[in-house]
Amino acid sequence: MTAGFKTLSAKAAAQLDQELMSTGAFSIDQLMEIAGLSVAKAIFKEYPPQATHQPPLQKVLVLVGPGNNGGDGLVAARHLKIWGAYDPVIYYPKKTESNKLYTNLIKQLKDLEAKEISTLDEIKQLLSKKGEVGVILDSIFGFSFKPPIRGVFKDVISYISQNHQELPPVVSVDIPSGWDVDDGPTDIDIKASTLISLSAPKPCAERFINSGPDKVHYLGGRFINPTIAKKFNIEDILEKYKGDELVTKL
Amino acid sequence: MTAGFKTLSAKAAAQLDQELMSTGAFSIDQLMEIAGLSVAKAIFKEYPPQATHQPPLQKVLVLVGPGNNGGDGLVAARHLKIWGAYDPVIYYPKKTESNKLYTNLIKQLKDLEAKEISTLDEIKQLLSKKGEVGVILDSIFGFSFKPPIRGVFKDVISYISQNHQELPPVVSVDIPSGWDVDDGPTDIDIKASTLISLSAPKPCAERFINSGPDKVHYLGGRFINPTIAKKFNIEDILEKYKGDELVTKL
Repeated sequence: MTAGFKTLSAKAAAQLDQELMSTGAFSIDQLMEIAGLSVAKAIFKEYPPQATHQPPLQKVLVLVGPGNNGGDGLVAARHLKIWGAYDPVIYYPKKTESNKLYTNLIKQLKDLEAKEISTLDEIKQLLSKKGEVGVILDSIFGFSFKPPIRGVFKDVISYISQNHQELPPVVSVDIPSGWDVDDGPTDIDIKASTLISLSAPKPCAERFINSGPDKVHYLGGRFINPTIAKKFNIEDILEKYKGDELVTKL
Repeated sequence: MTAGFKTLSAKAAAQLDQELMSTGAFSIDQLMEIAGLSVAKAIFKEYPPQATHQPPLQKVLVLVGPGNNGGDGLVAARHLKIWGAYDPVIYYPKKTESNKLYTNLIKQLKDLEAKEISTLDEIKQLLSKKGEVGVILDSIFGFSFKPPIRGVFKDVISYISQNHQELPPVVSVDIPSGWDVDDGPTDIDIKASTLISLSAPKPCAERFINSGPDKVHYLGGRFINPTIAKKFNIEDILEKYKGDELVTKL
């Protein structure tokens, strides 16, 4: 089975982002806000919260990488919390302290009393409580990631991968962390149930939907104008959006 | 009849914005993106486009003031266009050329081939074509406006006010332009059909909904955390949001 849609290679995806922020005149704040919001919308749609506005909320464990993929996760976590949908627990071991955007995103979450954890042991402990975490949001690596995985994320991704059948569903932003954006799975990957492709699907999205019968695929980050869409040959996929939706199930 | 909700005075609204951007650590880009998006969502909900994705689209005439209220309108116009909902025509006579956020917002609209007009005559001509414009978006003045109206906007607001029965419905952002945020109508105002209160309603919102039987009132700009909500005594109104909606009809 083929996915039946055009995909953006790692190189093309990087060019598209670059174009949005140069000639497109978007700020990273704007793009990340729309992208992260669409991630939150997809989670809300696919995994509706069990008890909206009724404490205690189910938790979403947000695994945050060092780059923009992580930023999308932080924005998503904020919206889910403001909606009273999920209570985020943030794992963000490699902070970019020098970048105001990221320190601001963390401050916004702190003001919402989002909990932060910093070790794999804390992750294990949190996930050991049956039903406490509803969803794991994987915003560790994005389309610029190149295997192999190094450092702290290797152990976290391994743990979640090896135990995925007992764990809550994993939602990955743009690519399942550990995958090569063009070439797909590596020996360590996160076993996502749902993938949210931002802007347009990357090549690994096709492998993802073919990797099991129940794989769910959303498209988000609805900020591409027709000229850029044409240039990158992604017009067809953008036609999938209906009405005013910010995210669509493919 | 009372509105039955707490309102934010001009002074309190300015303090709230200030607090969001200082201790709240939000950038103006982020807040304006969420605010403008909620304006677009309210327009889509209240005035559903007649022919989504079928050219020629109906137009939305976007009247853009010199400040943040204008910026919210520009963001809303972009989303409406990207959704294929409405074709924006921008009237933005007092541009803040030195502010990169605003020049960027205009560039984003130009890339979407949004038309710009610059005179009252062009506005009259556009509105004379029956059915061409579906909605007028009034993002001229916000909560910091103090009457009387001066300059070019006086003539535009007068024209739309005097002819409002023959014109498309007007959607106002935060306050109907011409109104004093605390004291309500002045001798020149824009006769809005729908008001979208951002963050929380201002005192004039109560006058607005009592000014006619069919007045429609939305709440948007869903980015307030519980601590700030409590401090400004607007917790009750924020409870009106349901699920993951970015805008709610009050």
